[in-house]
Amino acid sequence: MPQISQKGRRMPESPIRKLVPFAEAAKKRGIKVYHLNIGQPDIETPEVALNAVRNFNQKVVEYSHSAGILSYREKLAEYYKKHNIHITADDIIIGAGASEAILFAMNSCMDNGDEIIIPEPFYANYNGFAVNAGVNVVPIPSSIETGFALPPIAEFEKAITPKTKAIIICNPNNPTGYLYSKEELEVLREIVLKYDLFLFSDEVYREFCYDGKEHFSVMHLKGLENNVVLIDSVSKRYSACGVRIGAMISKNKELMATAMKFAQARLSPPTFGQVAAEAAIDTPDEYFENVLDEYLARRDVVVECINKMEGAYCPNPLGAFYVVAKLPIDDSDKFCKWLLEDFNYNNETVMLAPATGFYATKGKGMNEVRISYVLNVDDLKRSMKCLEEALKVYPGRTE
Amino acid sequence: MPQISQKGRRMPESPIRKLVPFAEAAKKRGIKVYHLNIGQPDIETPEVALNAVRNFNQKVVEYSHSAGILSYREKLAEYYKKHNIHITADDIIIGAGASEAILFAMNSCMDNGDEIIIPEPFYANYNGFAVNAGVNVVPIPSSIETGFALPPIAEFEKAITPKTKAIIICNPNNPTGYLYSKEELEVLREIVLKYDLFLFSDEVYREFCYDGKEHFSVMHLKGLENNVVLIDSVSKRYSACGVRIGAMISKNKELMATAMKFAQARLSPPTFGQVAAEAAIDTPDEYFENVLDEYLARRDVVVECINKMEGAYCPNPLGAFYVVAKLPIDDSDKFCKWLLEDFNYNNETVMLAPATGFYATKGKGMNEVRISYVLNVDDLKRSMKCLEEALKVYPGRTE
Repeated sequence: MPQISQKGRRMPESPIRKLVPFAEAAKKRGIKVYHLNIGQPDIETPEVALNAVRNFNQKVVEYSHSAGILSYREKLAEYYKKHNIHITADDIIIGAGASEAILFAMNSCMDNGDEIIIPEPFYANYNGFAVNAGVNVVPIPSSIETGFALPPIAEFEKAITPKTKAIIICNPNNPTGYLYSKEELEVLREIVLKYDLFLFSDEVYREFCYDGKEHFSVMHLKGLENNVVLIDSVSKRYSACGVRIGAMISKNKELMATAMKFAQARLSPPTFGQVAAEAAIDTPDEYFENVLDEYLARRDVVVECINKMEGAYCPNPLGAFYVVAKLPIDDSDKFCKWLLEDFNYNNETVMLAPATGFYATKGKGMNEVRISYVLNVDDLKRSMKCLEEALKVYPGRTE
Repeated sequence: MPQISQKGRRMPESPIRKLVPFAEAAKKRGIKVYHLNIGQPDIETPEVALNAVRNFNQKVVEYSHSAGILSYREKLAEYYKKHNIHITADDIIIGAGASEAILFAMNSCMDNGDEIIIPEPFYANYNGFAVNAGVNVVPIPSSIETGFALPPIAEFEKAITPKTKAIIICNPNNPTGYLYSKEELEVLREIVLKYDLFLFSDEVYREFCYDGKEHFSVMHLKGLENNVVLIDSVSKRYSACGVRIGAMISKNKELMATAMKFAQARLSPPTFGQVAAEAAIDTPDEYFENVLDEYLARRDVVVECINKMEGAYCPNPLGAFYVVAKLPIDDSDKFCKWLLEDFNYNNETVMLAPATGFYATKGKGMNEVRISYVLNVDDLKRSMKCLEEALKVYPGRTE
């Protein structure tokens, strides 16, 4: 029997998926499970996007351009202009989700054994993409005490080696909800220029900024045209995760020509998804105002509830729809499994993501969980009640 | 300025795309260009598939299961049963096209520096996938004289080294149209078992077999459950290239569990495409009968016309919708470019794929082109007339 690859063995398992069988079992026992474990919003996809697909009237579903349908990329450029990001259709390659865009970027910039620096905790799938591309992740610490702000420049410099080729940030951040400031990005600018690195910025939560804060993009940094790669996706913006439409964006012509070779090898991104995404650009502003109001209300519920629980703490993040909360627990993997296997409050429980999966450093995140506030306020309140009651009786409570 | 990766530099450019600017320029000069260069059929996508997407009535376009929507995989298992291939939904991972399925298979089975044996000429994008996965392609020769039959066992054995991990075939073949026989596959079975290799079989043209020949799948080979990976796609079957729905199929549980980690990292395959592909399984038999009649008529036109041209030759392939033809030319890249740049017959010309791009061995395919018979019979006849006239006046004619 032929052996699977070492690379395959090294691929991490999704920290969330491991819990799925326990959630299924809980449901079979008649327990209602609130899913705060994933970034699948309950918000409706804009009608304008769905209607475009419903009205698809071509007779043949053809390959699109490998970089994506030109009219879509042109319209995307207009969308970015509204965000003060000035690019053309040629600076964009559409991918099957941000996932594929990140793989294009890593493969185009980095070789086997090269290193990418990532402030941790970070989006767990970056680990998978790195293994896929043969790249080593070098984590540097951000911590709940500073609300998961950018680590100081000294931490980056300690981590840089001759193998370092790139830094990746997610802004606003998944899993922490942290929104990087202009000043923090200027720090990154200095490091990137000093060490001649690529800077990947995953900005799929751009629209989700709260308390009047504005998003500052890496694309706004001056003199970084050849270093910066913007990773984007319509999954969260339009609550359309299943369309699988993302983008890799850069003004570095050589890099984009290289990425195009990867894009051409896989022929094209999904046609229907592009049709939906192109139409979605016409989503009325009102939609976003409503969505933002809704998420803001949800964030407030979660942050307020958590901070009222004894021994629990979470910062008040300014973006995305996640918080990382510190809980009085011995082991977040054990705790999240226990919530599904051994606990219920009035036949309800909550599914959370253990934060251990968002850290590359072993042992970190043991007393932290990620909470996605992707349910309505009522359900969130019930979820928080479950969590509060659970913490009172969890056998591994630490304080 | 940071340097792009060595991997990116090694990525091959698509042999066809290089010619696109010349085709565009020809069109601007008022020349009609017949596109026989790509595998984009003109056949209509079945109504039943398009209607399913038009009737999509979910409010949120959610991530699907990472392996693909369960009802789709279950229905696919039924589809395969009709082809005497017995699998369950658990043996299937849906990918964004066969492209992603091949990457899953390579990454799960092979490490950086491992070798994959491929009879050449072969589908050019296998090169790109191999570079992407860090895998080295080892070509072994098939030739036009035998109609591109499977190379003898001795050729495989010469090519096998301790680094060899897999063999990939495409059956029916792109670019040659060759349909491998049961006997040829039995030969592969012996080799694969003797050397403990994976056998990837790309069977996306399964439905396109002519002259009463039946397709024999690697899944029909006995005792190869742990070695065989079936690569499939709905792109050609339902003329739905843009839906980006393919599949990686294997009964090797460890391999599928490994591939699932790659699938989970990228979250899910496209939802709309899966909806279309699931519905497409109900395409009436009549559709395929008409399509097959059409392709058969087209193949006959191409094969007959080519073989009437002085100094030209092509076999009469039994599958897919391609032929590789030998022409009296010095250099197929030069010739295909010349057809677009310097030639027209009554303001018409033809775009072909130089066969050099389908060979890994440098210098091979110089006097061969791939012709995709994806246009209707009238257009094909005109295309063949163009080619005939072109050969009469091409300055690099060799005989």
